[in-house]
Amino acid sequence: MISQLIEKIKKTNAPICVGLDPMLSYVPEHVVKKSFDTYGETLKGAAEAIWEFNKEIIDHTWDLIPAVKPQIAMYEQFGIEGLIVYKKTVDYCHEKGLIVIGDAKRGDIGSTSAAYAAGHLGKVQVGSNVFSGFDVDMLTVNPYLGTDGVKPFVDVCSSDDKGLFVLVKTSNPSSGEFQDRLIDGRPLYEWVAEKVMEWGESSMDGAYSNVGAVVGATYPEMSKILRRLMPHTYFLVPGYGAQGGTAEDLKHCFNEDGLGAIVNSSRGIIAAYKQEKYKQFGPEQFGGASRQAVVDMVNDINSVL
Amino acid sequence: MISQLIEKIKKTNAPICVGLDPMLSYVPEHVVKKSFDTYGETLKGAAEAIWEFNKEIIDHTWDLIPAVKPQIAMYEQFGIEGLIVYKKTVDYCHEKGLIVIGDAKRGDIGSTSAAYAAGHLGKVQVGSNVFSGFDVDMLTVNPYLGTDGVKPFVDVCSSDDKGLFVLVKTSNPSSGEFQDRLIDGRPLYEWVAEKVMEWGESSMDGAYSNVGAVVGATYPEMSKILRRLMPHTYFLVPGYGAQGGTAEDLKHCFNEDGLGAIVNSSRGIIAAYKQEKYKQFGPEQFGGASRQAVVDMVNDINSVL
Repeated sequence: MISQLIEKIKKTNAPICVGLDPMLSYVPEHVVKKSFDTYGETLKGAAEAIWEFNKEIIDHTWDLIPAVKPQIAMYEQFGIEGLIVYKKTVDYCHEKGLIVIGDAKRGDIGSTSAAYAAGHLGKVQVGSNVFSGFDVDMLTVNPYLGTDGVKPFVDVCSSDDKGLFVLVKTSNPSSGEFQDRLIDGRPLYEWVAEKVMEWGESSMDGAYSNVGAVVGATYPEMSKILRRLMPHTYFLVPGYGAQGGTAEDLKHCFNEDGLGAIVNSSRGIIAAYKQEKYKQFGPEQFGGASRQAVVDMVNDINSVL
Repeated sequence: MISQLIEKIKKTNAPICVGLDPMLSYVPEHVVKKSFDTYGETLKGAAEAIWEFNKEIIDHTWDLIPAVKPQIAMYEQFGIEGLIVYKKTVDYCHEKGLIVIGDAKRGDIGSTSAAYAAGHLGKVQVGSNVFSGFDVDMLTVNPYLGTDGVKPFVDVCSSDDKGLFVLVKTSNPSSGEFQDRLIDGRPLYEWVAEKVMEWGESSMDGAYSNVGAVVGATYPEMSKILRRLMPHTYFLVPGYGAQGGTAEDLKHCFNEDGLGAIVNSSRGIIAAYKQEKYKQFGPEQFGGASRQAVVDMVNDINSVL
């Protein structure tokens, strides 16, 4: 899977993904109103508004980007109706040829992780049939439970040609509380990084492994070290834009050849129309604002590579 | 919420919860067949078989127990259809007066955790209405991202009278890979425990906090230390039975007064009919086997308290 992602990154010359993390407050009023008029002020009304919002953004950006990263929490908050729209979004992105990174940060004991892996990445057997529940291409995974909690996801990467990004150093302000604590002189995130490489060895796909790492843009000194430590691990880099990470901050996430990282932006793209910079588009042309924000982000990042 | 759980534990004299973690392979053939005959060998067919299975087990055990713990992964593996049955199970358990601990192990950066907290524990605003997506009473949470990833869940505990169990020391074989590593002479899980207590201070509910901890039954020496360290923290204890933890192993999870812990059993209860010990029930009476397994588990645990 990682080789497919790399191919698409090269083709688009855009080492980025668009985070489809819609808050209802990001959705322009006319879209919300239309959905509420049809479905009422209900979970379905909210979910359908998000679907129309996503669709417009995808329609305006798909040809510029290799991948999207829907954050499943933003759909789960609307219960079943939200998850129906998550799945619809995944399927629509696939129709458009995009790689879908499900940002779910799942992780549990072995047998439970196997169920998550089957439901999100792989297939589940029902009688003599097999089905894919959510069918994303890559998934974010939490490492706190150790090898037996991650291994079932890695197995599906190998059997079904899928990919992972395991949380190593996250972008949020308090990520250091546990992740930065020193163990035998090295921060916990480096020990996690070592394990990510070990897990990844069994699912190599060209120069990189299908088992990648989440490395936040907001801690440039740490990503520099992690880049050197993990030469064959692709990084999913959150924290650019709204969370404070700049292109300069994240250039060390890339290898010399300009590969090795894919940078996510969510709010900065999908709610671009709300920014002063893109206000000429107005809420009616929010898709156009998102497209321009993608172009600007790609230029910004490529300028430091 | 924790005071409600304690009240129900006292009333039933059963410090246990039943893990509603159905694998399709646990569901007796006649139940699966009936569902496949109606819905086909489809995701809906699988999900409905699990629903009928859950319902029978709940009907046979609800009066003996304070709580259930559905593992959401087992439902997610069947996609939307599975999650519809997860929700149906949560609602049915509520009708029966049970406290529902959603075992979801969610955790992300702040704004994303807020969405998970709203969807699983709290409420989401849609226009002038509010809705509960999944509406469980308590939720398991992963601490790897630190305070800002956990705080939104704690806030909902306080605002909506809900509860959490934060992963501290998990029951799986490789839990020690990161959790046991020493930081300034103390294992990571103790540092997490310190934070859990800190988070819990803002949501006390009687003698205990609404912010509990997951402490596996499979590491008795560690749970002994954690029990002393966290006197006001309720423990959710997985690992009893099928995972190898015995009543003797987990007695140190309890305080002197017999409170302080709730022990989960999943396979040992819901697939009891498959055990030699309960074979007189047969697959047709699998609910009866589960009931007897609950009685035996409660006696076993109470024998060491």
